[in-house]
Amino acid sequence: DEKAKATDFANYFCSYAQLYHQKQMLADHNRMAAYHSAILGNSSVFKDKVVMDVGTGSGILAVWAAQAGARKVYAVEYTDMAKYAKRVMTANGVDNVVTVIQGAVEDIELPMEEDGLDPEGPVDIMISEWMGYFLLRESMMDSVIRARDKFLNKKTGLMFPSHCSMFVAPVRDEDDRKQNNNEYAGAMSDWHDFAETTRNMYGVDMDILEKDFDREQKEYYLLSSRWTELQPEVLLAEPKMIKQFDMATCTLEEARGITAGEPDAVFCFDINGTRNLGPVSAIAGWFTSDFRSRTDEHAAIAPKIENPSFLSTGPEQGYTHWGQQTFYLLSPLPLLKGEITRLEGSIEMTRTKENARLYNCKFKIQNSRRRLGQEDGQVLMKSPVQENVYQIP
Amino acid sequence: DEKAKATDFANYFCSYAQLYHQKQMLADHNRMAAYHSAILGNSSVFKDKVVMDVGTGSGILAVWAAQAGARKVYAVEYTDMAKYAKRVMTANGVDNVVTVIQGAVEDIELPMEEDGLDPEGPVDIMISEWMGYFLLRESMMDSVIRARDKFLNKKTGLMFPSHCSMFVAPVRDEDDRKQNNNEYAGAMSDWHDFAETTRNMYGVDMDILEKDFDREQKEYYLLSSRWTELQPEVLLAEPKMIKQFDMATCTLEEARGITAGEPDAVFCFDINGTRNLGPVSAIAGWFTSDFRSRTDEHAAIAPKIENPSFLSTGPEQGYTHWGQQTFYLLSPLPLLKGEITRLEGSIEMTRTKENARLYNCKFKIQNSRRRLGQEDGQVLMKSPVQENVYQIP
Ligand SMILES: Nc1ncnc2c1ncn2[C@@H]1O[C@H](CSCC[C@H](N)C(=O)O)[C@@H](O)[C@H]1O
Ligand SMILES: Nc1ncnc2c1ncn2[C@@H]1O[C@H](CSCC[C@H](N)C(=O)O)[C@@H](O)[C@H]1O
Repeated sequence: DEKAKATDFANYFCSYAQLYHQKQMLADHNRMAAYHSAILGNSSVFKDKVVMDVGTGSGILAVWAAQAGARKVYAVEYTDMAKYAKRVMTANGVDNVVTVIQGAVEDIELPMEEDGLDPEGPVDIMISEWMGYFLLRESMMDSVIRARDKFLNKKTGLMFPSHCSMFVAPVRDEDDRKQNNNEYAGAMSDWHDFAETTRNMYGVDMDILEKDFDREQKEYYLLSSRWTELQPEVLLAEPKMIKQFDMATCTLEEARGITAGEPDAVFCFDINGTRNLGPVSAIAGWFTSDFRSRTDEHAAIAPKIENPSFLSTGPEQGYTHWGQQTFYLLSPLPLLKGEITRLEGSIEMTRTKENARLYNCKFKIQNSRRRLGQEDGQVLMKSPVQENVYQIP
Repeated sequence: DEKAKATDFANYFCSYAQLYHQKQMLADHNRMAAYHSAILGNSSVFKDKVVMDVGTGSGILAVWAAQAGARKVYAVEYTDMAKYAKRVMTANGVDNVVTVIQGAVEDIELPMEEDGLDPEGPVDIMISEWMGYFLLRESMMDSVIRARDKFLNKKTGLMFPSHCSMFVAPVRDEDDRKQNNNEYAGAMSDWHDFAETTRNMYGVDMDILEKDFDREQKEYYLLSSRWTELQPEVLLAEPKMIKQFDMATCTLEEARGITAGEPDAVFCFDINGTRNLGPVSAIAGWFTSDFRSRTDEHAAIAPKIENPSFLSTGPEQGYTHWGQQTFYLLSPLPLLKGEITRLEGSIEMTRTKENARLYNCKFKIQNSRRRLGQEDGQVLMKSPVQENVYQIP
């Protein structure tokens, strides 16, 4: 409803109106290089095309599209950043090609007749940098899907990025895991001092709230994922792809998250305790984005991307402003020499009740141990299934 | 309108729904002691009275009112903290006296007939801890005024606190002032690297945005006040009271801020450079709250407060969670031995356009120097009037 939308917009768009925040993204070179080579590396595809940049921010992607030879670029931005983007177009000599439109992409209209656009689908290439933490946070994908369905040419239109995938892997990161646990323990020790003082000095018993405070602090310190910049050597197994989006076809329904029982949303990691230094501290999650040819039913008639580009936000890639979202286990899982430790489970990802741009992740995890060389042999020990719901803050 | 209200409520109430935040207030012993002695130190006044606690949070003030002998206490709280407060009442054996009502105090109704309340003004004593940074931030005073006008007995009703005052004083705090300036300089140096890299690596000229980035960073680092816990020895002159509220009579209009030209909203500090170590780094602002007898036209018939209580959030008082809001000068003002430095000016405080709970403070300041012992004599130097608008973040 209208009220919820007003609240959401006020909260969501606030930080994007700051140059400081836009600059952080512009200084993320893995991000920049992937989009730059996707666009400038495929200028034959952009030549004379109609392009839309969904959420243009400072306007960088729109400038590149113009530099790549687009006939017309519509750069759509909700915040006042649109005013800056306009000046960036002029300063870079592309204001004749790029039209900045301020508004929510869901609400705007294109100058169809004036600009002689194709009523069957005015936009040839839709570029957008919409990805949030662990891909889905911020739920901006919804806006891109809506824009695609309204403006993109259904048969020959291209989405940049074209495909996105989510990954998880077990990692060793005991320092951070322990720090969270210590902070949680410290908060509870504070509570006990506080309750004692409140009783002694002010005659009021607050003990009744201890369990609620405990839950609140657990959620904050232990059941929230953390932004991390993990080094490749902490990876304890091959990452598992848990969800894949074809940006040409994916639906609002798919974009909502990961529902229980999706076939991809499971993992089974066999970790060799002789080759890997443990313990397992956490499951890390991240995403990748591809800029390549269409793979759906219209693949044959849509223009081909001769020079695909790729963006990874995983530990092997070095810094990106997305980092990885790391979900710490409540207790570490040691790895033993001469043994295989298996971590198997599933992930579910749902929007929170309070805020549709935020997510909860439910992990179900079970671990078991076997002798090395007896991979399918006798299980020495199997844990019960542990189920925990984390919020992505 | 309704949309703006929804946005405001979602933002404002979020943190108060956390026990962590309530506990921070409950662990502020200057705050706690002032309210505790105001209520328990005047139990003869509370005996058999009808009390309302506006914004009860965890319920502490309502428990105290019941312990002081109130006949009935209505504890009003918007957030889910109300559910906790209910359990606190039971745990402290006052649930027969205290009724927790969840809702905005502007929207709720009292059970007038059921509880046999006086239709001319059901509430005898209204307690509330509504004060924000530099008193007015959060604008919760509006809610208290509305509750007063709707529920308090006009002639004999008491407000706790009864009077609030705002103060400013010049202070020495060069470490923090310099740090802000250094961070600002660092941000601008970063920008130059960034603009250069963006041009060289990605072929886009962002120079056109430098001035806007500069303004944004200046506002953030230099033209925002800071929370500080100042030591008494950094005070360079007697604090000046710039605004006073009689809680029994003050209006929504007064609560909006400090308008240009209010007679109290001026200051003139003469700082003796022989007795004080400079420089002047900032103007600090804070407030005090009194719990004393009414002083308005109904003073004679309202119950007297025999044991007044007092809360100060100034530097002489030690820690409070409010601290002081410190407004740093853009350049320091040295104090010279054998001279008097005069700092005179005025303050204006207005709500921001974007968010009525946030404030901008405009300071107009002029300084001048004279020989010590020639206080009214020849002025050696007089600066132009400097005008700066700070936001209270
Ligand atoms: N529904 C919507 N309509 C218009 N703009 C939106 C939007 N949702 C998000 N945005 C904008 O999308 C931008 C995403 S950040 C990416 C900015 C820029 N394209 C760059 O790559 O540097 C933000 O500036 C945000 O304000
Ligand atoms: N208009 C309104 N109606 C009801 N509650 C309000 C309100 N405005 C603010 N509040 C509540 O007022 C409280 C202020 S903080 C003070 C809490 C408590 N009285 C104590 O002294 O510890 C918050 O819990 C906030 O949620």
